[in-house]
Amino acid sequence: MSGLEYMRKLMAGEMTASGMAQLMNFKLTEVSEGRAVFSILPDERHYNGLGIAHGGLAATLLDTATGCAINTMMPAGRIFTTLEMKVNYVRPMKRETGEVRCEAHVIHVGSQVATAEGRIVDAEGKLYAHGTATCMLFRAQ
Amino acid sequence: MSGLEYMRKLMAGEMTASGMAQLMNFKLTEVSEGRAVFSILPDERHYNGLGIAHGGLAATLLDTATGCAINTMMPAGRIFTTLEMKVNYVRPMKRETGEVRCEAHVIHVGSQVATAEGRIVDAEGKLYAHGTATCMLFRAQ
Amino acid sequence: MSGLEYMRKLMAGEMTASGMAQLMNFKLTEVSEGRAVFSILPDERHYNGLGIAHGGLAATLLDTATGCAINTMMPAGRIFTTLEMKVNYVRPMKRETGEVRCEAHVIHVGSQVATAEGRIVDAEGKLYAHGTATCMLFRAQ
Amino acid sequence: MSGLEYMRKLMAGEMTASGMAQLMNFKLTEVSEGRAVFSILPDERHYNGLGIAHGGLAATLLDTATGCAINTMMPAGRIFTTLEMKVNYVRPMKRETGEVRCEAHVIHVGSQVATAEGRIVDAEGKLYAHGTATCMLFRAQ
Repeated sequence: MSGLEYMRKLMAGEMTASGMAQLMNFKLTEVSEGRAVFSILPDERHYNGLGIAHGGLAATLLDTATGCAINTMMPAGRIFTTLEMKVNYVRPMKRETGEVRCEAHVIHVGSQVATAEGRIVDAEGKLYAHGTATCMLFRAQ
Repeated sequence: MSGLEYMRKLMAGEMTASGMAQLMNFKLTEVSEGRAVFSILPDERHYNGLGIAHGGLAATLLDTATGCAINTMMPAGRIFTTLEMKVNYVRPMKRETGEVRCEAHVIHVGSQVATAEGRIVDAEGKLYAHGTATCMLFRAQ
Repeated sequence: MSGLEYMRKLMAGEMTASGMAQLMNFKLTEVSEGRAVFSILPDERHYNGLGIAHGGLAATLLDTATGCAINTMMPAGRIFTTLEMKVNYVRPMKRETGEVRCEAHVIHVGSQVATAEGRIVDAEGKLYAHGTATCMLFRAQ
Repeated sequence: MSGLEYMRKLMAGEMTASGMAQLMNFKLTEVSEGRAVFSILPDERHYNGLGIAHGGLAATLLDTATGCAINTMMPAGRIFTTLEMKVNYVRPMKRETGEVRCEAHVIHVGSQVATAEGRIVDAEGKLYAHGTATCMLFRAQ
């Protein structure tokens, strides 16, 4: 099964979402070649000690979306692992922000390394965070 | 209350852990001037689709620990917000890894900006991830 | 003088390029609100020990272009300093690559912090490196 | 020849420094297993338009030193390429700063990926910039 087929089954609800996606309450809302979008309503479970969403929420959402965007480019038998990721925080997210979505797309897919970027925006397109990830590609064993 | 006093109360259980710390199951295990250590037992709730801990676990743990390390340097009336963070993934974490701890310490604390770094290691000191964070410092209002 | 006016004078040759721009041989080729493009022909002076352009060439080019993109958004009396930057290397650059250009644009400009991204591409649009920068904004004194 | 042997010959002046090291005026001052130190006197050739050292100077210096630290761990026949690097700028560097040195050491060396970090400090140990790099390891062909 190719990465894109896997992602489409995930979106159709034919596969179970990962533990972390369930824990965080992420919803996969769009997937196409080179692109994945996840959405989340930030709430008190995601808060840090200052009463706003913890930086880990945006980081986990970006890691999920960029990884899935790269996954859509993997042929059957090809897997990947994230080497590093980086997040910039632009505005605080809270419950009052409403649902945000993380739109990710691949920047480069080579034979051994792929990079992707993502942006977290609200319903009006206002930017909350952005980031990039670098993944290493492998043959599944 | 200074940041260090706040962190000590948190460790003594005199303050409630944040929503995210509870959701992820992080435990604050050490705190001193310029340094904070959190621990976590990775389990299935933290997993991604590949059956290992999601990159968001290490990212959230590093963001927590680096932020708290910086917080220990904040005098009363001084707060901060994370501008950006970056994580490198070195080895996969699983339930079998056992409890890991993220040891973070400040690199630089200036008048407006602070940076910190952290490493996630297991009981034998084996490295799983490392990262840095950049924070902006403010007067609380 | 606003940042955009400054950049336009630089492009018109009415101001001297910085020492580093001269040392590296960067040429400013486009500037507009929120955007700056620099070009360079990689040659042996930019090489590392492996006979390809040193990573510092792409880093310096990206730092220049992202900083100048942010500068185009600065009103008179407002300056900035780079807090951090990050580069991803996608392909090696050599003299045979021919002239490359770094196209940078702002992602976010707030009251105290701005972020920008840039991509280094060749004449056919092939990607060689990409990166982001985070800057802090100040009132000039 | 192993990477460490190569680096020692470079330090002994038995091999020519790379184009970029010459252009920037970097001096290799220490090398040992897992560690490399380069020094530089920042001067007007390295300046940006604000009259301080361009961010590219620290980036190039960190990329050089972290790469060489990783190189000291490479057996004969093993080479590497930098996938990404990240720099934090802590203080401005100028000619008046005097000679600074970039001390880099490896964080992790695996079978396919290595990471290293570096810090740029002056003669008194004051910090000016710090950063990390991620490299991919290959068999030389």
